Amino acid sequence: MSGTAQIGVTGLAVMGRNLARNFARNGLTVALHNRTQARTDALVEEFGEEGAFVPTGSAEEFVAALERPRRLVVMVKAGEPTDAVIEEFAPLLEDGDVIIDGGNAHFEDTRRRERELRERGIHFVGAGISGGEEGALNGPSIMPGGSAESYESLGPLLERIAAKAPDGTPCVSHVGPDGAGHFVKMVHNGIEYADMQLIGEAYHLLRSVAGYSPAKIAETFRGWNEGRLDSYLIEITAQVLAHTDAATGEPFVDVVADQAEQKGTGRWTVQIALDLGVPVSGIAEAVFARSLSGHAGLREASRSLPGPTAQPLDEAEAARFADRVEQALYASKIVSYTQGFHMIRAGSEAYDWDVDLGAVASLWRAGCIIRAAFLDRIRAAYDAQPGLPSLLGDKEFAAEIGAAQDDWREVVATSARQGVPAPGFAAALSYYDALRADRLPAALTQGQRDYFGAHTYRRTDRDGVFHTLWGGDRSEVSAD
Amino acid sequence: MSGTAQIGVTGLAVMGRNLARNFARNGLTVALHNRTQARTDALVEEFGEEGAFVPTGSAEEFVAALERPRRLVVMVKAGEPTDAVIEEFAPLLEDGDVIIDGGNAHFEDTRRRERELRERGIHFVGAGISGGEEGALNGPSIMPGGSAESYESLGPLLERIAAKAPDGTPCVSHVGPDGAGHFVKMVHNGIEYADMQLIGEAYHLLRSVAGYSPAKIAETFRGWNEGRLDSYLIEITAQVLAHTDAATGEPFVDVVADQAEQKGTGRWTVQIALDLGVPVSGIAEAVFARSLSGHAGLREASRSLPGPTAQPLDEAEAARFADRVEQALYASKIVSYTQGFHMIRAGSEAYDWDVDLGAVASLWRAGCIIRAAFLDRIRAAYDAQPGLPSLLGDKEFAAEIGAAQDDWREVVATSARQGVPAPGFAAALSYYDALRADRLPAALTQGQRDYFGAHTYRRTDRDGVFHTLWGGDRSEVSAD
Repeated sequence: MSGTAQIGVTGLAVMGRNLARNFARNGLTVALHNRTQARTDALVEEFGEEGAFVPTGSAEEFVAALERPRRLVVMVKAGEPTDAVIEEFAPLLEDGDVIIDGGNAHFEDTRRRERELRERGIHFVGAGISGGEEGALNGPSIMPGGSAESYESLGPLLERIAAKAPDGTPCVSHVGPDGAGHFVKMVHNGIEYADMQLIGEAYHLLRSVAGYSPAKIAETFRGWNEGRLDSYLIEITAQVLAHTDAATGEPFVDVVADQAEQKGTGRWTVQIALDLGVPVSGIAEAVFARSLSGHAGLREASRSLPGPTAQPLDEAEAARFADRVEQALYASKIVSYTQGFHMIRAGSEAYDWDVDLGAVASLWRAGCIIRAAFLDRIRAAYDAQPGLPSLLGDKEFAAEIGAAQDDWREVVATSARQGVPAPGFAAALSYYDALRADRLPAALTQGQRDYFGAHTYRRTDRDGVFHTLWGGDRSEVSAD
Repeated sequence: MSGTAQIGVTGLAVMGRNLARNFARNGLTVALHNRTQARTDALVEEFGEEGAFVPTGSAEEFVAALERPRRLVVMVKAGEPTDAVIEEFAPLLEDGDVIIDGGNAHFEDTRRRERELRERGIHFVGAGISGGEEGALNGPSIMPGGSAESYESLGPLLERIAAKAPDGTPCVSHVGPDGAGHFVKMVHNGIEYADMQLIGEAYHLLRSVAGYSPAKIAETFRGWNEGRLDSYLIEITAQVLAHTDAATGEPFVDVVADQAEQKGTGRWTVQIALDLGVPVSGIAEAVFARSLSGHAGLREASRSLPGPTAQPLDEAEAARFADRVEQALYASKIVSYTQGFHMIRAGSEAYDWDVDLGAVASLWRAGCIIRAAFLDRIRAAYDAQPGLPSLLGDKEFAAEIGAAQDDWREVVATSARQGVPAPGFAAALSYYDALRADRLPAALTQGQRDYFGAHTYRRTDRDGVFHTLWGGDRSEVSAD
């Protein structure tokens, strides 16, 4: 027996509710389920006229309401609640049915769940969904993993509700098997951390070095948003900076406590990157900057540490400096995406996912927090050269960085001299210079390791593994 | 029935063998055991005259050879081999006996093992041992965790074999319960990564900016080693840089492949620091620098990226620059230890270990890789102010950084301008400037998060949690 609903959503908190409404508004019949039925009823009462909803009470009713193969979207908290819901529904499903986890699961959990459910004949799709509440309702960027077969059945439905890129393409595609979707969503969030940190540094420099007011910086960001930095985050930054606090009449940004919070996906990104051996220094500095800001006691105890006083600039100098900051922000952003895409490539290789990097850039073009004109450029770079080892290898990006680098270097130097921290700009520049370096001091590191721990080294002029008898006559022996 | 050996060592590869010899040379009777008896016999045959060894064959013989309470040092590979050896011996032990794991275990494994063995009446001591093979034989720095009771029985034995600080104090003390010892050893290794990276950057700058030869840099490091940077790592760096490759006649450092390897404890340190919310940017940059150096393909593809050409300096300018680099290295080192000790404090609080930070500095003064005159200064800082929230809060360190900062800033600026990467110096400076900042752009971050995700924020002027209706009339609502 099977029902008529093409898709079902269980877990009707705000994200689940908005996703259900999005499906219904796009002409799909949507079965609804929630642990407590009151939420289901409230949704139908408030938004029932938006489309075809099938409210259900029990798990059995919910499953019975779905057409075969059944497609159940689970929108509950990551971790144990997700496992509990899966365990509730899996016994009621049949071969070929699809469970979609639209939460923020760790991709390792998704890999485990996919494996366990596959053995029971059920497709499990870990789908990263970005765009928050508003995106869920009006068009998110969706990153589904899981089997290619599941995407055949599920993809057309997701394409209806996904955000549409400027060229009309839906921001969804099959990312890869098992945990690929949640992995890519995790890296998306890591890049989001880095983007926000770089914007924060640009703001801080314009405020402290150029001496701009928040309103003036808002205007500057609006200007940048007309150019190559055109993006959602730049746009909302201008909005936040232009906002005045009603209670005090002060700029809003000045009354907000400067202790940033985080929910964990940035931290995960760095931890997994470390396991994969991928340098993601921009994301790491962003995560560290947030945690540093929260150590109120440490900061209080450090306020009196000596440092320079920023020198005020005249109007023309300030305007020139603002232009330099735009160059630094753009160059650092290229590096940040270079690191993020390197990580996706490394994950794809480690887990055998065969992720199409151009397609990932494509599905981030709308609906998600990091949506930006820039992503079309990345897509174009990978479309032109799918095997591109690094975004920096793209001729256009390399040329842009080349043109930006003098200003970028000057901004980092100014930050150091004037004592206005720009860890993201500096880390991005160091990464760039290290990558292009002919020789790195890693050779010295290897020499030190061989000296104190007999860890051996390789040579530039012949194959093999060697050790120098540092405690003896310092001759070299083969350690193959 | 109990034997006469005061201590036993099982696992007689080079570290275990050297530790056993160290115990015997210091007058203790040492029971020996190894999975294959040949190693036991070889040790006795080769080094039997160094002291009192009791070679044993079976696990039962080994246990019977030990006086009560028994003290067994396990020197096998971390992970499953350690669990296997514990499972072999635990059933043969009695209440109050002590198993010491002297390997490089992850502290979470140590916490689990300690808990499981405690329930069986056995003390489990996870002991970090630093100093490599040579240290194990002649005096390592030892970081034992576990119960205070176990240290009463074990401590006096460890004090005999530990390295002695310049003032004669043995480099061992009870670090704290369960995983505290292995945790502190892990952070030691993280700091070691950062130290090595900073030294590598100093070398790179002296080479590329000052135009010094490896021999000249060796001489420079020897000079630094006479001053406040006096340390084992600076000393061996000079040795490595002064070494000439016999096969080619070239400086040794120029024939070593510049791809640094790592064994994982630096990575662990950063991963755990992220969980604890402690910014350890110096260690992270060191780990990333090693992994970056190993991405040969990526580097090859990036060699042609545009960048500046370093300007040669005349002799006087070069000497002046070298002095600046010494200042930058010293200031960055203070920051790096500040981050490391912050992490130990955070770990101690999270796991309720009550670690004495001054004592940790004290036991790193000799025997381990990061041994340095500097550690006496850290000990003195914590002895004077045990509750010091940050090493930077110590007046002497703050004053030294104050005196170093102009040069430090200039070196970071020069690195940026001349395209010679110094991620460790730059990250340390950013951390310093962020900590002392009056206001951080974290306020903007909070505003952005509230805008796109309704994540709420706090205010500077009153308690509570707030949200601005960004999509509506932009009034502020309480979100408590």
